[in-house]
Amino acid sequence: MARIQARVLRGFRDYMPEEMLPRQKMLQIVEQVFLSFGYAPLQTPAMEYSEVLLGKYGAEGDKLLYRFLDNGERDIALRYDLTVPLARVVAQNANLPLPFKRYQIAPVWRAEKPARGRFREFMQCDADIIGASGSAAEVEILSLGERILQRLDVGAFAIRVNHRGVFDGLASLLEIEAPDQKIALVRTLDKLDKIGREKVLEVLANEVGITAGGLEIVSAFLDLPTGDLDAAAAFFSEQNAGAAAVSDLARTVALARETGCGESLLPDLSLARGLNYYTGLIYEASLNALPEYGSVMGGGRYDGLMDIFGAPPHPAVGISLGVDRLYAALSEMKGSESASTATKVLVVVFGDEGFVSASRLAQELRGADFATEVYLQPKTKIGKQFRYADRKGIPFVAIQGSDELETSTVRIKDLQKGEEGVFSFSDAVAWIQARL
Amino acid sequence: MARIQARVLRGFRDYMPEEMLPRQKMLQIVEQVFLSFGYAPLQTPAMEYSEVLLGKYGAEGDKLLYRFLDNGERDIALRYDLTVPLARVVAQNANLPLPFKRYQIAPVWRAEKPARGRFREFMQCDADIIGASGSAAEVEILSLGERILQRLDVGAFAIRVNHRGVFDGLASLLEIEAPDQKIALVRTLDKLDKIGREKVLEVLANEVGITAGGLEIVSAFLDLPTGDLDAAAAFFSEQNAGAAAVSDLARTVALARETGCGESLLPDLSLARGLNYYTGLIYEASLNALPEYGSVMGGGRYDGLMDIFGAPPHPAVGISLGVDRLYAALSEMKGSESASTATKVLVVVFGDEGFVSASRLAQELRGADFATEVYLQPKTKIGKQFRYADRKGIPFVAIQGSDELETSTVRIKDLQKGEEGVFSFSDAVAWIQARL
Repeated sequence: MARIQARVLRGFRDYMPEEMLPRQKMLQIVEQVFLSFGYAPLQTPAMEYSEVLLGKYGAEGDKLLYRFLDNGERDIALRYDLTVPLARVVAQNANLPLPFKRYQIAPVWRAEKPARGRFREFMQCDADIIGASGSAAEVEILSLGERILQRLDVGAFAIRVNHRGVFDGLASLLEIEAPDQKIALVRTLDKLDKIGREKVLEVLANEVGITAGGLEIVSAFLDLPTGDLDAAAAFFSEQNAGAAAVSDLARTVALARETGCGESLLPDLSLARGLNYYTGLIYEASLNALPEYGSVMGGGRYDGLMDIFGAPPHPAVGISLGVDRLYAALSEMKGSESASTATKVLVVVFGDEGFVSASRLAQELRGADFATEVYLQPKTKIGKQFRYADRKGIPFVAIQGSDELETSTVRIKDLQKGEEGVFSFSDAVAWIQARL
Repeated sequence: MARIQARVLRGFRDYMPEEMLPRQKMLQIVEQVFLSFGYAPLQTPAMEYSEVLLGKYGAEGDKLLYRFLDNGERDIALRYDLTVPLARVVAQNANLPLPFKRYQIAPVWRAEKPARGRFREFMQCDADIIGASGSAAEVEILSLGERILQRLDVGAFAIRVNHRGVFDGLASLLEIEAPDQKIALVRTLDKLDKIGREKVLEVLANEVGITAGGLEIVSAFLDLPTGDLDAAAAFFSEQNAGAAAVSDLARTVALARETGCGESLLPDLSLARGLNYYTGLIYEASLNALPEYGSVMGGGRYDGLMDIFGAPPHPAVGISLGVDRLYAALSEMKGSESASTATKVLVVVFGDEGFVSASRLAQELRGADFATEVYLQPKTKIGKQFRYADRKGIPFVAIQGSDELETSTVRIKDLQKGEEGVFSFSDAVAWIQARL
């Protein structure tokens, strides 16, 4: 067999233990919060019939699908997000008790041009409520998001909220009727944070076809003071669709605040979100300390999407976490841990004859709830065993030589502080616990 | 857009919440044990260059790969197992501190003919030690497996153990020299549990080309009393490779028993395992109460596999759990839970004006560590809200009507027992806790 080069595909990557461990810790917290709010896990296949996915993400999305014929000549594709598979599941299971609250944390695949921090396989982390209209479900989703960011301990954050109907109102002021032009308007406004106001107005003029008079209206719209829903209401006449949207949004925000959540909510009429399927509330969260990471969490109401497979129309509202951004932000805030293992104690081994006692000690330490390894090459010199602990970031080493065995004690060394002591087993446990 | 049928691909399935919840619980226990032994998580991509996977699983395996050209005309394939990607990672990371102990719990894809209980996407759950030769690593893997089955509470089980060298010895007694014939011998013996002894001898005679004299040797080999390594040692002459293998196996078993593990170990020279790459210890676990589920866990030493990408040779030993079989066995033993949610308490809502107090109560209940839902369509009749709790398997309903609000109490109903009471909040918490 010719030698094959060991390499990963362009746009893909391995997650080594030192990165997986803190990522898993983060996702566990998220999952706990999902479960505490009554969201249940759902798992859909990695592959779907292509027709299930095609046309759901726009022409651009269709091109980014990993799509192929399987051995049975079926036209199949890897999932592109978790929302369309959810819509399929809802359509297939007419008897689901509603509201159906599910979460899914799973990789999705998009054949995008790889770039720094952008991969063709990445984790999505979504929770959605299917079958609940009105403000209550929206307040819950906002409160869920707020709780997650609090539990992740990311410091202060803002959840900017808006309502898609505001853009119907704006489009009507601009006398835009063609759906494509309205979509282009929203997409362009969505770039505000990235390209800035001037460039947005330029694109609106040159590419979206907004007139000079229209640009003045957009300017006035962008001048609306952030957080001031009264000013927003005054901007639209009562007959304008924007007025109803602002009043809807005001109700949701007030209710969220009344329930004791919503401290971080900031109504912001310029928040657009790029996806086309939103129909009501939209929101995005960013971290005060690291605004450059952009949106770390977002979502909204998408009442029209769930019936793409001919199921009865279901109202829907959801949340999606930017796992990679959140992880990067957390690493920057807290410093990345260098341990490539969760092991807390390495038991060193004195030759083959020492393996049995070392294994027994390890089992006792595991019983005391310390992840514990025995060094598995018993003939290795003690110095090399210590270096192994050091390289892996294992904080403690336990040693039971003939002296300690005779006196039923154990020697524990704290590698970070360079301190050690000889203890009874229960004292050793307490000593380690106090230092972890 | 034409209406698309909502369906999953043949050989694939959705895992709905009622199944995901107990599966996740099971995998969490497994993961905790992995971590407590110092195994760290690794995540490799779902896709690899086809050349990385081709030829590693035999001609049959190559045919079962999901293989296709991506948009950039790269020849890629979905992972078929977790072992070959691990070998790739080890080859790519020459500076990994050894032994490298990793686990991975992830789906793999094989285009097999779908059958009852056999899917084209299924979860693998592997832990491996790379870079440790000798008995210590083998004892640890056995002890890890034993601990997992104990923690999963599957009742009594047997871990049958053998050594691949035994078949080198047997092949030499049968004067088999061609590698293919030896592989066929092992593969046929591996079917002993499935097709029985007579059929095995028939296949050996007709398809593997074993002579009548050879069949007598095989018969004597199969007659060796299970568990008796002295008899096994006596079967092979001292010069025969089988003798060294038996002595190796005896050392590992003795060491495992000395470390306090290994109670369930049962040496069985007829245990073969189908995969070709094993070089030493092999083992498989089955449940005493449900032998018909076959092997629920297995693995062995495969010292030759890790250098397929030209990395320096690394000894390796691993464990693989049969997630689906274990889950099915656990469900049969304990009865499958019918809850489609982890929610413990549903807070019913009395109209829009009741949503704020209901949300506050839910937050308090979450704070007391009960997963709690608020019913999200506040205008819904109370009877329908109760039916929702019932259909989802939520055990408790909390009610705070005007009476309870006035007296700062909460009414809790135990839906399973049909009992209820009005409590202060802290008494309510205690009442629920006592019944969970």
